[in-house]
Amino acid sequence: MTAFPFFTEDASVNAVNARIGAGCDPRLALVMARLVHHLHAFVKDVGLTQDEWGLAIDFLTCTGQMCDANRQEYILLSDVLGVSMLVDAINNRRPAPATENTVLGPFHVDGVAEMPMGSNICKDGAAEPCLFEGTVTDLQGTPLDGVRIDVWSDNEEGFYDVQQPGLQPEHNNRGVFVTGPDGRYWFQGIKPVSYPIPDDGPVGQLLGRLGRHPYRPAHMHFMIRRDGYDAIITHTFVAGDDYLTSDAVFGVKQSLVAGFDPVTGGAVKWRSRFDFVMNPVASEVPA
Amino acid sequence: MTAFPFFTEDASVNAVNARIGAGCDPRLALVMARLVHHLHAFVKDVGLTQDEWGLAIDFLTCTGQMCDANRQEYILLSDVLGVSMLVDAINNRRPAPATENTVLGPFHVDGVAEMPMGSNICKDGAAEPCLFEGTVTDLQGTPLDGVRIDVWSDNEEGFYDVQQPGLQPEHNNRGVFVTGPDGRYWFQGIKPVSYPIPDDGPVGQLLGRLGRHPYRPAHMHFMIRRDGYDAIITHTFVAGDDYLTSDAVFGVKQSLVAGFDPVTGGAVKWRSRFDFVMNPVASEVPA
Repeated sequence: MTAFPFFTEDASVNAVNARIGAGCDPRLALVMARLVHHLHAFVKDVGLTQDEWGLAIDFLTCTGQMCDANRQEYILLSDVLGVSMLVDAINNRRPAPATENTVLGPFHVDGVAEMPMGSNICKDGAAEPCLFEGTVTDLQGTPLDGVRIDVWSDNEEGFYDVQQPGLQPEHNNRGVFVTGPDGRYWFQGIKPVSYPIPDDGPVGQLLGRLGRHPYRPAHMHFMIRRDGYDAIITHTFVAGDDYLTSDAVFGVKQSLVAGFDPVTGGAVKWRSRFDFVMNPVASEVPA
Repeated sequence: MTAFPFFTEDASVNAVNARIGAGCDPRLALVMARLVHHLHAFVKDVGLTQDEWGLAIDFLTCTGQMCDANRQEYILLSDVLGVSMLVDAINNRRPAPATENTVLGPFHVDGVAEMPMGSNICKDGAAEPCLFEGTVTDLQGTPLDGVRIDVWSDNEEGFYDVQQPGLQPEHNNRGVFVTGPDGRYWFQGIKPVSYPIPDDGPVGQLLGRLGRHPYRPAHMHFMIRRDGYDAIITHTFVAGDDYLTSDAVFGVKQSLVAGFDPVTGGAVKWRSRFDFVMNPVASEVPA
């Protein structure tokens, strides 16, 4: 016999959570019980109407049905509600001056070949060439060797290669580099451009009704890994971008805004320097 | 310039909600702002991990993709989390002794023909015949005429006609009756049986992992309508049913449990009496 045999408005949360079986995984039981607590609090808080509930059911259904092998509308929804950034934030708290994380995004590709330091990752010769450079150090400023730096960006039209198969060369604007003893990295890419997240689905419609635009400020993706250190998954953002203070997915952090300085008298038109600082994994921090 | 140009863990809710445009519908703005508030509170409360976030994205996606013209997995999810009952409760608060609501469920059908009072709604002759009877009154106990009573139940195997097209006669165990001046209703149906909600999808898997069963206690659906009164959408539940205190969708209320008494010496084997009390619509209540 359960303690809450019948549902009532006042005891709605306990009525649901009292049903969780004794054999349920404790973490799942906790997460679901708290989900029910917060979900019911939301419904009561706004006094959700039957019509609004129906709209929500339709929206959630359409969002699932928009997903396929190349489109993940639920990640977009999580992104535009700030949930993706929040989950990233609470799972990647780091002491200064360690480089901050931001969202991975849906366009990372595994299996890109390592290139010699200094290579050009832009394979279609388009856009404005940009030199990216900097140093990877530990918290004390000591350069780190053997750091694997995985980078990717959109092309001058705002599309990643995987969004335009056949139109862009494979692995266009993608590269993997490994630092030497000086901890330095440098490679040639393009100055990234701002672009809209896919907005032809339910999430785009929601943004429109909220009076929000779908744009992300221009950014270069970095995934930086070395044994013994927390992986850094982040972007550098182009200082001065129109959307820097209104990223549709809330990815911008003050510390990640990077200067892109004009360069004259050569093929390379821009130069962006950004230094990364790695945090040791928790198990290797002295007690 | 927004007041929260950059996302931080502490200011995550305000960073998202500050983006809502001035032209947004005020109700949508309120509902979404409070949704973000409660959703972020949930993520912070449980310290949701990246892996758990990924499982949630997959679950929500699969739930949407399970839906089709005959299956609404998101309503099932709302049902098993107690949200459907909560929305029903906050939108249908009524003074005693008015009959309480419960969930509509997915199996109501429009367009069933009105029948003479006393008709048999069971068209396949199966199961144990049951006489349903009672009176519909206002709050003062005055019988109401012209009340439209729409009833539906499963068959003896636990399936509604719309779940077994071709196997059951159309509109099997469905009927519509209209009261006369005495407010009385009576018709013959079957004693309903308990049945599982569809549990071969993501919601069924979730129930399994939570250690919950998918069964609903046996019930007869009633939709009772008359001009000037709140519609009553409810069930009567078979007293003594094994699942009465553990309805998978939390539909049972103490006041809706009905006696089903055995009848001897005739074709009808059971008799269930239930009186309904209608509440005047708010606009017709004296100030």
